[in-house]
Amino acid sequence: MNRTMINELQGKAGEKVLLKGWLHRVRELGKIAFLILRDRTGMVQCIVETGKISIKGIKLESVIEIVGEIKENKSLDLGCEIAVEAIKVISAVNYDLPIEINKGELEAGLDTILNNRVLSLRHPKTNAVFKLQAVLAQSFGEYLKSNAFTQVFSSKIVGGGTEGGTEVFEIKYFDKKAYLAQSPQFYKQMLVGSGFERVFEIGHVYRAESHDTNRHLNEYVSLDLEMGFIEDERDLINLETEMLKYMLSQASLQCSEELRLHNVQLPEIKGEIPSIPLPEAIEILKREYGKTDLENDIDPEGERLIADYVYKTFGSEFVFLTHYPRSKRPMYTMPADGGLTHSFDLIFRGLEITTGGQRIHSYEQLRTSMLERGLNPDSYPGYMDVFKYGMPPHGGLAIGLERLTAQLLGIKNVREATLFPRDRYRLNP
Amino acid sequence: MNRTMINELQGKAGEKVLLKGWLHRVRELGKIAFLILRDRTGMVQCIVETGKISIKGIKLESVIEIVGEIKENKSLDLGCEIAVEAIKVISAVNYDLPIEINKGELEAGLDTILNNRVLSLRHPKTNAVFKLQAVLAQSFGEYLKSNAFTQVFSSKIVGGGTEGGTEVFEIKYFDKKAYLAQSPQFYKQMLVGSGFERVFEIGHVYRAESHDTNRHLNEYVSLDLEMGFIEDERDLINLETEMLKYMLSQASLQCSEELRLHNVQLPEIKGEIPSIPLPEAIEILKREYGKTDLENDIDPEGERLIADYVYKTFGSEFVFLTHYPRSKRPMYTMPADGGLTHSFDLIFRGLEITTGGQRIHSYEQLRTSMLERGLNPDSYPGYMDVFKYGMPPHGGLAIGLERLTAQLLGIKNVREATLFPRDRYRLNP
Repeated sequence: MNRTMINELQGKAGEKVLLKGWLHRVRELGKIAFLILRDRTGMVQCIVETGKISIKGIKLESVIEIVGEIKENKSLDLGCEIAVEAIKVISAVNYDLPIEINKGELEAGLDTILNNRVLSLRHPKTNAVFKLQAVLAQSFGEYLKSNAFTQVFSSKIVGGGTEGGTEVFEIKYFDKKAYLAQSPQFYKQMLVGSGFERVFEIGHVYRAESHDTNRHLNEYVSLDLEMGFIEDERDLINLETEMLKYMLSQASLQCSEELRLHNVQLPEIKGEIPSIPLPEAIEILKREYGKTDLENDIDPEGERLIADYVYKTFGSEFVFLTHYPRSKRPMYTMPADGGLTHSFDLIFRGLEITTGGQRIHSYEQLRTSMLERGLNPDSYPGYMDVFKYGMPPHGGLAIGLERLTAQLLGIKNVREATLFPRDRYRLNP
Repeated sequence: MNRTMINELQGKAGEKVLLKGWLHRVRELGKIAFLILRDRTGMVQCIVETGKISIKGIKLESVIEIVGEIKENKSLDLGCEIAVEAIKVISAVNYDLPIEINKGELEAGLDTILNNRVLSLRHPKTNAVFKLQAVLAQSFGEYLKSNAFTQVFSSKIVGGGTEGGTEVFEIKYFDKKAYLAQSPQFYKQMLVGSGFERVFEIGHVYRAESHDTNRHLNEYVSLDLEMGFIEDERDLINLETEMLKYMLSQASLQCSEELRLHNVQLPEIKGEIPSIPLPEAIEILKREYGKTDLENDIDPEGERLIADYVYKTFGSEFVFLTHYPRSKRPMYTMPADGGLTHSFDLIFRGLEITTGGQRIHSYEQLRTSMLERGLNPDSYPGYMDVFKYGMPPHGGLAIGLERLTAQLLGIKNVREATLFPRDRYRLNP
């Protein structure tokens, strides 16, 4: 008999089926036991007459096979249950479970959850986080592919010449020193200039920052894109707006059950996302919230407050902050008038989820920008080449996949939106 | 005026268009110059009356804009050309090009090609390699997603407990030592047992092997999958067969121009791929080719010869070699009778492109297998957990993306199928 998945049981009362999965819960009532079987598609109640079929010694989370008949039961969410005719243990559990995963909420501290990842991920709410995350990554790629972007895979081991500004992890590379890439920034620019014009990458990036917050990871998945022949950063802002609409529509379509489990509503993007130049945002924060400690930059509190302001004023949960000052952006950022830049961040529900902007495409201008910051252009030979040999106006952006996932689901700590997070103290599992 | 892409020009004679791209080639004939403009979609001939419009000083590979009228010209592949009305240089080249990229073949040594990656990638044949590569990676994901696999992102920084057998790169992780993951093997098994049942990952893996061959890289993209509730390795062999059919059909559909440039035919898979147990393959090599130096294993020469035999005998360019001996497979491989295993390699045109197999799912059996090989199960706490708490029968496989790309295009050195290859000596660009 072929395996039937639990989400295929509805409307088939009377049929005999073979189910496989994990034993999620057991309740014994006299001569009857109610087992909950869980597979990757859901859960079903299975009724066992314990006088005929023994379930003694079968511990929770054992992998079992059940043969039985589908019975209609309208009082259950699924609309049916299984009258069990045979149970077989495929993989027995002989150990006590370190955490309980058969309650509505996973009641354990973050460290316990992460230390017992293979169990905590079995909890339907935890599992749902990563089903949504997969759809977000995939729909990012689908949207860009349909807009003539080529997916690329750039090296994460770099010989030197990092962007500056953040710490990097050092690797022993045979007899040399190398570093883990803090972003595919240089590579994606080089690939735009290599004739691809439009590229995207979905891959890990590494930051050796030692601070320990609920929104930072030392390794995360960056959804990166870069495109050539743009006018300015507005082209990127428009692209991201349409891309997010597509990603949210796919999440809504493919993850309705996952979103229901988390009891969240996806944000709506109607038309354009509001866009505020940073200097104006700083004025608004002063005027509306009496926040006077900002100068030329915004802090996490400021991001939360400006998000609050935009939601109250425009009804949008997203806001683009634009025109960051030159001093706050990397050397490759295209300058704008008044010491500002053609750059932007996207704030979603009070947290920055994207940084992007137009880049400098002139070799001489880039050299000058590096020298002004005390960087040596000769340390970046492969990168500088592309600007010598014909580079179109271009720009790009990067979205932190774990942050986007966490913000959509109302998860407070980005580690919970990471399968196997890496931070200052955590290297396992 | 909006930009028109070169592949949109056909059938629009008489229209005025704005084109943008790189100046690929120039030929001057008296008062007329023929420019070839290249964008991400192709190339077009543009006719300039040099008495009216000067092209003096515009070097090859400059980024330019051309405004002109589309003229029918049936003697050209494209069927049309551009009568230029205006040229504007967007990004001038002021340097001599270190390599010529406007010939039919890129005539340079591998080191020169890789050292000048941003230029060599502009050559249409080189560029085409990575267009195909993107389609292969994407169609791998599409096929698996439509078969209920969840895409996952596992950590590439591991605290210890590697699979053994290959060397790893060491990272300075704050005050600890860590390593670059040599595969997502442990994580994908853990995720099968975490309730996802079926997972895939597209990501980099790292091997610190110091040998220098044309088929090895120290960093490559691994197309990984793992699935639960299998009977044995035949389920994986069947899955890979159908998946490859889908990937090849997508490559054929989406990359006809790229395949034409490389003058290659995609292989056909009709029905099943031939499957030969390794001991039988060794006998065949002895009998048919007088190759007597193999015992319990196969070498690269043997792989080429068995591929030759299978092609002559069955007309297939693919062959699964199965039942490798236990001594040649990792500790997690499911044993079969006679000291063999439920494992396989897939050989394509004489090169191994996949390794896979069923894994041990019993905690006790896995412990024993580790101890037999002198490994300490306590070094793998996160991994071992999943076998304690209910693990279904499962297995998986991994395909090397660069190898598959190279073999499909008849590329001899896998470095040429890597955007920015990393080997014993190469860390840049």
